[in-house]
Amino acid sequence: MAPFITFEGIEGSGKTTQIQRLTKLLHQQGHSVLQTREPGGCSIADQIRGILLHPDNAEMDSRAELLLYAAARAQHIEQIVRPALNDNKVVICDRFTDATIAYQGDGRGLDRDLISQLNHLAAGNCRPGLTLLFDLPVETGLSRALQRESEQQNCTEGRFEREKTEFHQRIRNGYLQLAKSEPQRVKIIQADRSPEQVFEQVRGFVDSFLQAEDEK
Amino acid sequence: MAPFITFEGIEGSGKTTQIQRLTKLLHQQGHSVLQTREPGGCSIADQIRGILLHPDNAEMDSRAELLLYAAARAQHIEQIVRPALNDNKVVICDRFTDATIAYQGDGRGLDRDLISQLNHLAAGNCRPGLTLLFDLPVETGLSRALQRESEQQNCTEGRFEREKTEFHQRIRNGYLQLAKSEPQRVKIIQADRSPEQVFEQVRGFVDSFLQAEDEK
Repeated sequence: MAPFITFEGIEGSGKTTQIQRLTKLLHQQGHSVLQTREPGGCSIADQIRGILLHPDNAEMDSRAELLLYAAARAQHIEQIVRPALNDNKVVICDRFTDATIAYQGDGRGLDRDLISQLNHLAAGNCRPGLTLLFDLPVETGLSRALQRESEQQNCTEGRFEREKTEFHQRIRNGYLQLAKSEPQRVKIIQADRSPEQVFEQVRGFVDSFLQAEDEK
Repeated sequence: MAPFITFEGIEGSGKTTQIQRLTKLLHQQGHSVLQTREPGGCSIADQIRGILLHPDNAEMDSRAELLLYAAARAQHIEQIVRPALNDNKVVICDRFTDATIAYQGDGRGLDRDLISQLNHLAAGNCRPGLTLLFDLPVETGLSRALQRESEQQNCTEGRFEREKTEFHQRIRNGYLQLAKSEPQRVKIIQADRSPEQVFEQVRGFVDSFLQAEDEK
């Protein structure tokens, strides 16, 4: 299968900007690239995203939330990700299974085995070879996210951004734990630096990864 | 827990009309009743219902479909069904976990153990004490459903009604198998008779069930 790269991190960690830069660079280098995101990435999963992120859905049960993420992922994998990997495209995905472990596991406190089972059910053998974890202090991330929201008059991520700081802190810790347990795959990006400095780190990890994939 | 009654059956089996009559009768008898349905029954689950049943979502992956049903059920149980049962209401639900076994198991061919796990995850200990299975020939049900659709200019159930006859036949057989394996709980209603004759059967089973519950 072609290279599969995921970007992870708390709200306001700057993933989106860097994904766009990386996609552009890889295109320039002659790669065929699919840039996508979760939840979403296709019509049905985008409809599920609408339910998951809408701030009016504050009464959502945490198991329902977990199952909605799994549903969106199953659809996205079958319809978009797997065909692209089979078509030899580099797939770059903004959030994936690690987000479910960090948000629904560490954040919501749901059972880890259950999350693993649902991740496996939804994603099957589609596993990222490289995961870039954008790490920064929770307060910095949240203030960036809220600023973006007010600038864009955009409240699509409101349901998570409105959670308390402790919730986001648990997610950050969960992500760091994942990086510790899978250091070969999960690389930490110091995301509180300038966009240029962040991109240098991204580029370094991606170059090494693609080179290693080429040599396989 | 209070009595929990579910209605099951293929498209066009006439459940909805009979549920309304039963709810009215139980109210008249002095019962406190919650009439609800799946998928749906509360705002978030109704949003999921909209995705599940929309005819434009023809490309839905069958595992995504199963996970969406489970998500809607988890939300509906936590927010609506369990509180009503704890409040000593008779809960009457149009479709429940048996529908997932028949539609996603027998209809789509998904793994039975997986369906059981997801049903258990979503519904927990909320299990119906009485299930009325509305049985009739598939052709009769589908022609009724299509007539209703054209009369109401309503296509909300289109995605399932557009499936082939064999799909609905597998579901009918799956339901009958369930009735055979749990005869104490699942009672077969001959649904191709007149509404009055059907209601007599419904009333008979519900009366016996509520009496037995009273004596517990």
